[in-house]
Amino acid sequence: MRIKVINPNTTESMTRLIEVSARAAVSPGTDLVAVHPTMGPASIESAYDEALSVPGLLTEIVQGEPADGYVIACFGDPGLDAAREVAPGPVVGIAEAAMRTASYLGHSFTIVTTLARTIGRAAELVDRYGVDGYCRNIRACEIPVLELETDPKARERILAECEAAIAADGAEVIVLGCAGMADLCADLTARLGAPVIDGVAAGVTVVEGLVRLNLSTSRTGTYARPPAKSYTGALSAFGLP
Amino acid sequence: MRIKVINPNTTESMTRLIEVSARAAVSPGTDLVAVHPTMGPASIESAYDEALSVPGLLTEIVQGEPADGYVIACFGDPGLDAAREVAPGPVVGIAEAAMRTASYLGHSFTIVTTLARTIGRAAELVDRYGVDGYCRNIRACEIPVLELETDPKARERILAECEAAIAADGAEVIVLGCAGMADLCADLTARLGAPVIDGVAAGVTVVEGLVRLNLSTSRTGTYARPPAKSYTGALSAFGLP
Amino acid sequence: MRIKVINPNTTESMTRLIEVSARAAVSPGTDLVAVHPTMGPASIESAYDEALSVPGLLTEIVQGEPADGYVIACFGDPGLDAAREVAPGPVVGIAEAAMRTASYLGHSFTIVTTLARTIGRAAELVDRYGVDGYCRNIRACEIPVLELETDPKARERILAECEAAIAADGAEVIVLGCAGMADLCADLTARLGAPVIDGVAAGVTVVEGLVRLNLSTSRTGTYARPPAKSYTGALSAFGLP
Amino acid sequence: MRIKVINPNTTESMTRLIEVSARAAVSPGTDLVAVHPTMGPASIESAYDEALSVPGLLTEIVQGEPADGYVIACFGDPGLDAAREVAPGPVVGIAEAAMRTASYLGHSFTIVTTLARTIGRAAELVDRYGVDGYCRNIRACEIPVLELETDPKARERILAECEAAIAADGAEVIVLGCAGMADLCADLTARLGAPVIDGVAAGVTVVEGLVRLNLSTSRTGTYARPPAKSYTGALSAFGLP
Amino acid sequence: MRIKVINPNTTESMTRLIEVSARAAVSPGTDLVAVHPTMGPASIESAYDEALSVPGLLTEIVQGEPADGYVIACFGDPGLDAAREVAPGPVVGIAEAAMRTASYLGHSFTIVTTLARTIGRAAELVDRYGVDGYCRNIRACEIPVLELETDPKARERILAECEAAIAADGAEVIVLGCAGMADLCADLTARLGAPVIDGVAAGVTVVEGLVRLNLSTSRTGTYARPPAKSYTGALSAFGLP
Amino acid sequence: MRIKVINPNTTESMTRLIEVSARAAVSPGTDLVAVHPTMGPASIESAYDEALSVPGLLTEIVQGEPADGYVIACFGDPGLDAAREVAPGPVVGIAEAAMRTASYLGHSFTIVTTLARTIGRAAELVDRYGVDGYCRNIRACEIPVLELETDPKARERILAECEAAIAADGAEVIVLGCAGMADLCADLTARLGAPVIDGVAAGVTVVEGLVRLNLSTSRTGTYARPPAKSYTGALSAFGLP
Repeated sequence: MRIKVINPNTTESMTRLIEVSARAAVSPGTDLVAVHPTMGPASIESAYDEALSVPGLLTEIVQGEPADGYVIACFGDPGLDAAREVAPGPVVGIAEAAMRTASYLGHSFTIVTTLARTIGRAAELVDRYGVDGYCRNIRACEIPVLELETDPKARERILAECEAAIAADGAEVIVLGCAGMADLCADLTARLGAPVIDGVAAGVTVVEGLVRLNLSTSRTGTYARPPAKSYTGALSAFGLP
Repeated sequence: MRIKVINPNTTESMTRLIEVSARAAVSPGTDLVAVHPTMGPASIESAYDEALSVPGLLTEIVQGEPADGYVIACFGDPGLDAAREVAPGPVVGIAEAAMRTASYLGHSFTIVTTLARTIGRAAELVDRYGVDGYCRNIRACEIPVLELETDPKARERILAECEAAIAADGAEVIVLGCAGMADLCADLTARLGAPVIDGVAAGVTVVEGLVRLNLSTSRTGTYARPPAKSYTGALSAFGLP
Repeated sequence: MRIKVINPNTTESMTRLIEVSARAAVSPGTDLVAVHPTMGPASIESAYDEALSVPGLLTEIVQGEPADGYVIACFGDPGLDAAREVAPGPVVGIAEAAMRTASYLGHSFTIVTTLARTIGRAAELVDRYGVDGYCRNIRACEIPVLELETDPKARERILAECEAAIAADGAEVIVLGCAGMADLCADLTARLGAPVIDGVAAGVTVVEGLVRLNLSTSRTGTYARPPAKSYTGALSAFGLP
Repeated sequence: MRIKVINPNTTESMTRLIEVSARAAVSPGTDLVAVHPTMGPASIESAYDEALSVPGLLTEIVQGEPADGYVIACFGDPGLDAAREVAPGPVVGIAEAAMRTASYLGHSFTIVTTLARTIGRAAELVDRYGVDGYCRNIRACEIPVLELETDPKARERILAECEAAIAADGAEVIVLGCAGMADLCADLTARLGAPVIDGVAAGVTVVEGLVRLNLSTSRTGTYARPPAKSYTGALSAFGLP
Repeated sequence: MRIKVINPNTTESMTRLIEVSARAAVSPGTDLVAVHPTMGPASIESAYDEALSVPGLLTEIVQGEPADGYVIACFGDPGLDAAREVAPGPVVGIAEAAMRTASYLGHSFTIVTTLARTIGRAAELVDRYGVDGYCRNIRACEIPVLELETDPKARERILAECEAAIAADGAEVIVLGCAGMADLCADLTARLGAPVIDGVAAGVTVVEGLVRLNLSTSRTGTYARPPAKSYTGALSAFGLP
Repeated sequence: MRIKVINPNTTESMTRLIEVSARAAVSPGTDLVAVHPTMGPASIESAYDEALSVPGLLTEIVQGEPADGYVIACFGDPGLDAAREVAPGPVVGIAEAAMRTASYLGHSFTIVTTLARTIGRAAELVDRYGVDGYCRNIRACEIPVLELETDPKARERILAECEAAIAADGAEVIVLGCAGMADLCADLTARLGAPVIDGVAAGVTVVEGLVRLNLSTSRTGTYARPPAKSYTGALSAFGLP
């Protein structure tokens, strides 16, 4: 079984960080590949970034080597519907995987994310995935994605938000709201005494389970393969046969 | 006042059809421009098409001549959040404009769209815009977007779905679920004896109203301008200063 | 085109204030009339007041000179359904217009209203119009309606609630919860740096758009004209032919 | 204990029919009074009728002899909020009482009402009272309110809708959607083998229970007594001290 | 008429306290019986306790002397669905009765309960009964059930939470979240100036009303009598004929 | 890693059928144990059966040999909250696992269950798990649980409901609503051309993933270990230290 984890931004160091978390989550014998597109934004912190990350992401699915299952490793789950239409196997976003995984572990969770400006998008996904009954709050630590690795105060600020989530929101579970926080998960769990969920690990586990059960995206409705048609301009290579 | 209507697909004839409907809706003295991108799909009938229409759509906003307000003329409202972040004035999608306009006219509406495979997307927007209490049904006439103009049976099949919407769904208002149906609106209204809403006309009217009231997208939260960052590959031109 | 704005209370100075805001919102060439009933309460601050404002309001529609579109200029949207049944053209309430207009401009809004006792009614309308996903809070400045014009501290207290809405609620847009606040809108916008919506202006703009698009209330269901029947006592004049 | 049941329309025969049902529901020793206003519509079949029934209804509360509890005997629950603000004891609408009573008896109910044009109002109340999870359908028998007593086919048509509610909607309980159906309740129950709820009986029972428990409308918020103010014109008598 | 109130825990003193509240609520002439099972937990403060209280509770219904109506006197409404299937008359839980009764008295209520760990269950019932639009908060006083009778500070701590509910939550009505608080209801009402609801009294009143109206659980669907089948082991006595 | 699957009814043949499905779903090296209680009902087809299955189920957790994770193999997810409080590792119900797994594969699913009388319970779980946006319908094939293995027409009737789910409900995924249908999953998938989900396989996969990620039930709130207390009568053995 081969699982491909796609970091939709173009920052290599972040792809490597994601890969470490993903590799720790798969079963022995599963072949894990972590990649990022060759076009698109260096990090995703706006709807604009998110929209422009999708063509590169889809390239990794349509033109890259096929896999049995795919994980989109950005907490906005960019391009998830499009990816499902064209990928040969199941596709899972790390936000949906993290939120649904949290709902097996407690009555409530809080999301701890990077910039406050992404709270709107996270709230939209909470609503779309039907977990509004579980989600108590979405908290921002106001550290940009690419500074998660370099800001020496990042860990403490994220920890502080997690503690507030438990104490003030009554959250029973913490959901980390950025793939770039994957490496903090074990440490936070130990310090908080409550489950902390990294969407990358959750996503890899979910898609591996789907592949093992021989389940893939339904083709009978919304996710049927797209009708063939011509694409023009810089995107002309995207035309599907 | 200048309003720019962007058809996010690349089919010129459809842009012209949209332009006619839009021009009929604006006040005297408003400068209306209808355009389409130079890259992207010939029509939008899947999440894949929709995702790949967005870069071209954003080009029309970021690199084109500025306008006072913008309308995205595809019923999936592709790229709406991203467009709001970067456009100098308010941006309105035709689906949100059509659905909200319908809610001033009756207790309920049904959407009549093209292919059944787009029902999932329309349902998602119904939910997102908070009009699920009004929306009775989403019906497909199973005519592809680009055949709306050429299929001689298109008009009758759409009319049949509208009639069923009123009789079987109890819909008090009809919402046309594709920009390519804009030219049918007046005729359907006359034959049905119930309000029929074309999103292009509705969208132009809404955005013109916002501009007249001097209202534009809030910059205090989700729609703040995106952080500057580098874009690589085929999309490198998208980097914002 | 003639738009009639009805202030459902009987206070002349408030009708004039509303007229100024309405007149500034219409297009050149539109004939705007602002009126109030000859019977009913001096201001509307309870369900009791609201219920008793409706007969007078309906008189202005049923017996007054007809218009192409109507605006009900009280944030409780009193008598909206009844007005739709009997008015010859579309009818818009300022609460629905303000809330739906807000949803084009940001992910969230807070309503700033007069007395806390009206919060329950505003919450009911938020729910009815399907904008609960957008509405963050409803704040009261505890200034009675008729003191908005005379209390020298009114402006500062309303401003303070607006600032709290942005800072504490995370509201991206402000909705003013009383027709009597219409004249504060421009000033508040300038000082807050966020869109502030006056329902009177929003309502006039919406109904003008509906008339321009030749859209009116559906007669196929809930808003069909009422069955003729006799009315007795002080209300006997209300019998429809 | 004295319970006042107010039929908000002005038709004496209907008040008497309501009185019979109400009297059968109260405990021995409770003083039951059934009245109707001297002004307003002969029956309530539109939002227009409903709005114009409220001043007369409020007269019965504000100016009539006081009671310990009140029932509003029209399925649209007209004027319920206003009545709560000014009545000395608790006020219950027959729609809310019927729907909440139904939710103790089964997982689901269907409302069987008079004219299809009132379905919108009933749906609004279902939503407002939070029973949308229980309500399967709202069916109309298309018999006007005042013909319920005279139309020889009324009973059979209502029975047919009740049977369809059980068979097609899966309704476990029937809610009668008009006070004028009160006298049919026992017979329908016997023929259907499922609980059938008459709102008049349910409302009287609920309000009697509230009075016995010494519970009345909260005055700490929305239902505080209205601020005193002047009323002008034909409604000037409504001014509260 | 005979009403049986079942305290699902096995603590005799609590059954007596419940009986006092229940007896004060019934009409003259109604025969009230208050019992508790001979097996199960001494108090109910977890889902584990709740699950294990149900067999004893069902014994009181299936094997005890029959009654015309039943009240389950624990705020988690344990075993309510099962009890409805097998009881000869209507069954009401004190949580549903308290919450629905509250909704006749104000726009909003807050529940004041014992331990914070039961908040999750209460929230689930709020959602199930459709009163989420009314429920502002669920507050815990952190006093174990069996210490309500003995802790000298219990009354003051509960009062403090009720006061906070009104001041901070804007609750118009208080719902007591434990049958063991039944004796505090009158005193709290007097001190708070807002309605306080004891579920035991509310439940008895509701079920008495249902019996008087000759209404009982529907047998046409979910609550049909269970299919006969064998039970083995310690529960073999539960087999229904 | 050891996973214990608990069939909450006492029918050995059904436990074996469940075991086959579970064993096929786990990874190599995982130790799978399938058990059933020694007390309780032979099958679960009512709330009464469900309530009485829980003590036996909890015995398997509290007194049986510990495992790393647990699956409750009945589609009503009986005793799930109680089990979470006392189990040493994560606990997953097959209904929640099946429904959440379905939501990764399509926009919509329909549940195909045994008896119509269990539809109410399934609907309650759909609501509780937040998947009402995905669930199109719940269909019953009217075959009792224990006849699934013996009724020669069972397979065809279930297939017919699945086909109707796709054609009439527009379901993109099928969820099997009974553990006793586990063996039909592969065959139905092949014949329908759409994903069919067996909750037993889904549940085992989910819990195995949780254990691999070192995630277990949060102890900070609702699922904290129950307070120690005495249990009396036939259940006295349930007292926790």
